[in-house]
Amino acid sequence: MIKTDILIIGAGPTGLFTVFEAGLLKLKCHLIDALPQPGGQCSEIYPKKPIYDIPAYPEILAGDLTDKLLEQCKQFEPGFTLGERAETIEKQEDGSFIVTTNKGTKHQAPVVAIAGGLGSFEPRKPLIHNITSFEDKGVEYIIKDPEIYRNKRVVIAGGGDSALDWSIFLSDVASEVTLIHRRNEFRGHLDSVEKVQELKNKGKINLITPAEVTGIVGDHKVDGVVIKESDNIHIDKEYVLETDHFIPLFGLSPKLGPIANWGLEIEKNAIKVNNALDYQTNIPGIFAIGDVNTYPGKLKLILCGFHEATLMCQAAYQIINPGKKYVLKYTTVSGIDGFDGTRKEAPKAVVKSIQ
Amino acid sequence: MIKTDILIIGAGPTGLFTVFEAGLLKLKCHLIDALPQPGGQCSEIYPKKPIYDIPAYPEILAGDLTDKLLEQCKQFEPGFTLGERAETIEKQEDGSFIVTTNKGTKHQAPVVAIAGGLGSFEPRKPLIHNITSFEDKGVEYIIKDPEIYRNKRVVIAGGGDSALDWSIFLSDVASEVTLIHRRNEFRGHLDSVEKVQELKNKGKINLITPAEVTGIVGDHKVDGVVIKESDNIHIDKEYVLETDHFIPLFGLSPKLGPIANWGLEIEKNAIKVNNALDYQTNIPGIFAIGDVNTYPGKLKLILCGFHEATLMCQAAYQIINPGKKYVLKYTTVSGIDGFDGTRKEAPKAVVKSIQ
Repeated sequence: MIKTDILIIGAGPTGLFTVFEAGLLKLKCHLIDALPQPGGQCSEIYPKKPIYDIPAYPEILAGDLTDKLLEQCKQFEPGFTLGERAETIEKQEDGSFIVTTNKGTKHQAPVVAIAGGLGSFEPRKPLIHNITSFEDKGVEYIIKDPEIYRNKRVVIAGGGDSALDWSIFLSDVASEVTLIHRRNEFRGHLDSVEKVQELKNKGKINLITPAEVTGIVGDHKVDGVVIKESDNIHIDKEYVLETDHFIPLFGLSPKLGPIANWGLEIEKNAIKVNNALDYQTNIPGIFAIGDVNTYPGKLKLILCGFHEATLMCQAAYQIINPGKKYVLKYTTVSGIDGFDGTRKEAPKAVVKSIQ
Repeated sequence: MIKTDILIIGAGPTGLFTVFEAGLLKLKCHLIDALPQPGGQCSEIYPKKPIYDIPAYPEILAGDLTDKLLEQCKQFEPGFTLGERAETIEKQEDGSFIVTTNKGTKHQAPVVAIAGGLGSFEPRKPLIHNITSFEDKGVEYIIKDPEIYRNKRVVIAGGGDSALDWSIFLSDVASEVTLIHRRNEFRGHLDSVEKVQELKNKGKINLITPAEVTGIVGDHKVDGVVIKESDNIHIDKEYVLETDHFIPLFGLSPKLGPIANWGLEIEKNAIKVNNALDYQTNIPGIFAIGDVNTYPGKLKLILCGFHEATLMCQAAYQIINPGKKYVLKYTTVSGIDGFDGTRKEAPKAVVKSIQ
């Protein structure tokens, strides 16, 4: 059982900033995220895209935003349960909650903060009748640990940035990379398209277009994929290509998922909160912050999530320290004491005579 | 008459970010501030101090925060009335407001956003009976334009960073700089104290301590100051030092000031707003955002001002464009069109075949 003060569902920007604000109040956090790394959409969907409306950043790449937020909160030593989806929640007699993931990991905390963004990102799956039976047996929709592909044969399907970028990356890891796309044209960053062209010319990526994977063969695990290839005069040929892994990268689509069944008041796929005070849901002790919540006038902007997280932490403090008064201190004045023993503080003024 | 869409009282971080968010909605802004430069407290009081709780900035100097916010909003060409204090407000028949400063400058806008922080910063004045009659006649409490001191004799009084830093700066501008402090010890950045020591040794700053300015002499303008100097055996001597300017730098203290008389609901020196929706005050069309407002759960943090400014702009849009629906667009997706003709946008994905 993982125990913490604030259990945060979702490790996107709002979740990460919650760690920092909670840390200022001496509260510890643990984050659960279905994606294999922190950062939410910013890291998974558009890490190389610029955002222009983060205050005081005229421009910041979404991936860099994640890095900065991780750096800002690392003093407060957050725990992470990554690559697992929060599945069930149970209220305990002592008022705390136990949240269990789809892999069975259990977490206990007096306060739960749902910072789930648009929901957990579920991969779009290709229409192959037996694909589910090969999941985690050679079929992966999200690359969590590239090392599992070392010296293996992989087939990647897709025509966007994910397919391009992972083909490039794995061309140095896997023994054989085949990229399959139903058109000759790829849609992505110019750099990535050009790099794949170059690796194809060098023979480091095997490119099959226009083509589709229409079946999977294997006994308990993937042994090969059925490829349907069209030539220019529209005559199809179908054949089996031997491979150890099949990785369809057709994008992710957000789904509110299991938290929709937690008894929370939901409106238009978002969780209703009392914005007037602290972004608490209809269940005391459960808060919803960032894109996942809704209230009159709500804007789904990262900067709003930062504000909501900050106010929420004050309410969490009251739940965790009933009756104790917290006096707001400014970081510029008081500095910050990390849970890891580090301290940040403004250079002290000196009192010094001039002779 | 200066006309704009949103008239912002206060050019601190919240006011500056309002320009950006309003710009995204194609609304123009003009800012009034009693200080001679934008940035509010961050620029005037603690430009060299680090802030640790701006989201995604593990550390940023307050002065740099101002610079970044100015850079972020400059595409939207804000207007500025600086060094003037918003004094009176009059509602017009067409629903707009006219705000007049203490210098008589008039501004008209359908929406007024008070982003006044802790109020306008008023200098602490030394107890010299005739000092007010010399204001702007050789006595200045805030240095607005250092050029007016070129080749003049100046006397600076004070023992903190402002007194130290301006003495250093003016030692290259004025013909003679005298720094007077009632103790031998100065309180400030080590760098600044050491630099003053060095300039004193070189004869570029004339230092008189422990001493006080107790009077001003002159006919219509400052001709000299009366200095009371104590030696080590506590025998005082009093004499007149000829000078063109006397600059007492004893700090600024914030006062809500004239806006307290605008008919707004005030609670504990802050303006009450309807936080549940849009941070509007009891007077429709007048909003209060950032440290100047209050509502249940209010935290006086810069990041909260950013959120409040953003939601406020949506309501301002409705007032300025009645009945028109605004659809939120993400900057990453849509880019940003500046009023100056510039455009920021994410690099476009290419659609390109790989041969």
